[in-house]
Amino acid sequence: MPEFLTLLPPDEARELLLSHLAGLRVNSESIDSDQALDRVTAEDVVAPHPLPEFPRSTVDGYAVRARDTFGATDSLPGYLTLIGEIPMGGAPEFKIQQGQCALIHTGGMLPEGADAVVMLEYTQPAHKNEMEIMRAVADGENVIKVGEDVKADQTVIRRGVRLRAAEIGGLMALGIIRVKVARKPRVGLISSGDEVIAPSQSPRPGQIRDVNAFTLAALVTKSGGDAVQYGIVCDEMSALKEIAARALTECDAVVITAGSSASTRDMTAEVISSLGAPGVLVHGINTRPGKPTILGVCNGKAVIGLPGNPVSALVNGYLFIVPLIEKLLGALPKVQAAVNARLVVNLSSQAGREDWWPVKLSRSGRGDTQSKSEYSAEPIFGKSNLIFMLAAADGLLRIPPDATGLSAGEIVKVFLI
Amino acid sequence: MPEFLTLLPPDEARELLLSHLAGLRVNSESIDSDQALDRVTAEDVVAPHPLPEFPRSTVDGYAVRARDTFGATDSLPGYLTLIGEIPMGGAPEFKIQQGQCALIHTGGMLPEGADAVVMLEYTQPAHKNEMEIMRAVADGENVIKVGEDVKADQTVIRRGVRLRAAEIGGLMALGIIRVKVARKPRVGLISSGDEVIAPSQSPRPGQIRDVNAFTLAALVTKSGGDAVQYGIVCDEMSALKEIAARALTECDAVVITAGSSASTRDMTAEVISSLGAPGVLVHGINTRPGKPTILGVCNGKAVIGLPGNPVSALVNGYLFIVPLIEKLLGALPKVQAAVNARLVVNLSSQAGREDWWPVKLSRSGRGDTQSKSEYSAEPIFGKSNLIFMLAAADGLLRIPPDATGLSAGEIVKVFLI
Repeated sequence: MPEFLTLLPPDEARELLLSHLAGLRVNSESIDSDQALDRVTAEDVVAPHPLPEFPRSTVDGYAVRARDTFGATDSLPGYLTLIGEIPMGGAPEFKIQQGQCALIHTGGMLPEGADAVVMLEYTQPAHKNEMEIMRAVADGENVIKVGEDVKADQTVIRRGVRLRAAEIGGLMALGIIRVKVARKPRVGLISSGDEVIAPSQSPRPGQIRDVNAFTLAALVTKSGGDAVQYGIVCDEMSALKEIAARALTECDAVVITAGSSASTRDMTAEVISSLGAPGVLVHGINTRPGKPTILGVCNGKAVIGLPGNPVSALVNGYLFIVPLIEKLLGALPKVQAAVNARLVVNLSSQAGREDWWPVKLSRSGRGDTQSKSEYSAEPIFGKSNLIFMLAAADGLLRIPPDATGLSAGEIVKVFLI
Repeated sequence: MPEFLTLLPPDEARELLLSHLAGLRVNSESIDSDQALDRVTAEDVVAPHPLPEFPRSTVDGYAVRARDTFGATDSLPGYLTLIGEIPMGGAPEFKIQQGQCALIHTGGMLPEGADAVVMLEYTQPAHKNEMEIMRAVADGENVIKVGEDVKADQTVIRRGVRLRAAEIGGLMALGIIRVKVARKPRVGLISSGDEVIAPSQSPRPGQIRDVNAFTLAALVTKSGGDAVQYGIVCDEMSALKEIAARALTECDAVVITAGSSASTRDMTAEVISSLGAPGVLVHGINTRPGKPTILGVCNGKAVIGLPGNPVSALVNGYLFIVPLIEKLLGALPKVQAAVNARLVVNLSSQAGREDWWPVKLSRSGRGDTQSKSEYSAEPIFGKSNLIFMLAAADGLLRIPPDATGLSAGEIVKVFLI
């Protein structure tokens, strides 16, 4: 198998692939901000005005000039003339002058002249239109100043941010009801193999239903792409070439899951090389599962060949398709969802090879404060052809290339899938 | 403020709310399995047949009777008669008898009589129709047996599982192209406050745009629910009652974000109590932010009153709306996405109160093997009215009620938001 002569480590392989796509990203589209959850911003978002736009009280109380409360205590209260109440949602129609105060509610607009608010509980009515103030406040106390949340022209959301609830709220607060986001990258999915049939069909002996097109479609969707299904192609060069060429024209990237035999894998490599320059960049990754993965670039678009085994295909989808989509989206690096867990068995690994183990997580029962690991991680042993092995897994455990294994009891990082 | 006399800890408050909804879950619907990503199964999924349905080879090689290879080595190979090649996607038309072998590809169907496969690299052609076998194999070696992935009638996916790529692949492998999932719970969202306007409008002095309806809608969507917007209601009891009653009829749960002043919060409580028995269950939570949160159940449906401050509303959305939706979906407990990080400053907290701090995570640069924390966590200080404070956060850090703070340098768990 000459194609396996130079196996690249996964990180290096991914870097090589992405380096050939430098500067490439999908174009943008404007969508309603309230529909933009999980989409990636295509440009910096700048505040059109400060937030808040007017000074607001953060408490229920009395708007005052701070210096008028100087020295006020329970035993020696100050006295201020109550000149009115500030309506919610409106501007006060009066100014606070020396010795005056006004009733204000949380979120209410501070009247001109006032610079602080005394909380309700530190006040009480004295005489008619007079309030007893039992606590001194500093300038700005219990007030949000103009621009304290954001200033006008401040960049509030950078390009490449995947929008969450908080960012969508921020857009709304600023009245930005349309937002420019990266178009969803279209990823064409092709399954090949004479033995593969559609899930809706009944397999005859020797046939299996297609799994990879659907696991990978879910992965593409979850990562922010649009999966485009090109169906199942038989193990025939011309058929695979034709459909792959069409997919490459119509999509931003193409993924071919090969039939599992060596000959069909070779065919995938040949097809990728025929689609355009530079063709195959990586043929074989030093990882388990996923050694036969092929990474290529044809006419400026990524084409990935994945092994037919469902576990290999999905694990290598996490390793290569997800970062590819993030690259096309122009997404900034994000914090990966992972948990620390205590490994329950020894795991051996070949030095130089990066292993990815599906693991099941269980709560250890008690919080282990020393290590902060509430979970134990149990690797799921099985052949990489077994899709339900992955369905039983909560995450993937990485054994780095420089390790020859992990020991039972070690705290390991499990990436949630 | 009499409503704050008995502040419940958040866990207790949540438990009380959910205990009033015991047994409640939304009904189910059948959908296409390839559209079922992130949906929650409404019943156990049982395998209609074993997987694989026929014995398959996991390698390229020769199908043999294991006992015929006994003792075979490089120096003392065995010899087997080659009787044919097994086509991919079909059943072999021959049986393997004593002393025979057949060429088989990865994923190919084992012929009758054969019970193992010798890898290609341990074989070479000897004479015409004769193969030299240089390695002995055990019964079952390089073979996936019938039912090795799943057995017929085995429960392969439990009720309450949120479907990921792997489960969708599993469904496809079994030909289950429709799946019964929990209908998305409808969560009605009402914003109240005389000062609140729609994001598309231009605020006059004293007015602010609605944020909470949109942050909470994103949270509901992300958690697997359907957000139903009921718009903004002014601070008038009859208007709020009317819209809340309609939302309660049309939805599975209702969330009211109150105007931020004490009087409007009281109004929310009164409205909840008027909607049906038992009404308000919890009025005030011993947490920061979010003290004024109200939890109620009216005629068997949850009604939640959240503070108007965007940070409080969203943090309390994570604490109460997310678990409520999971309860309605019948979702099994899942592993929460979190990372361990090193806190960079001291954080104090009032004993007995649970604090939730928005924090920003940064890569520490070097992987800290001792603690497995690659990140440092920096709390974002600011008033809970500032929505961009949350937009700057990667996650939330919990200070438990029994702690009076956390120290700089401590390893803390940050829940990703």
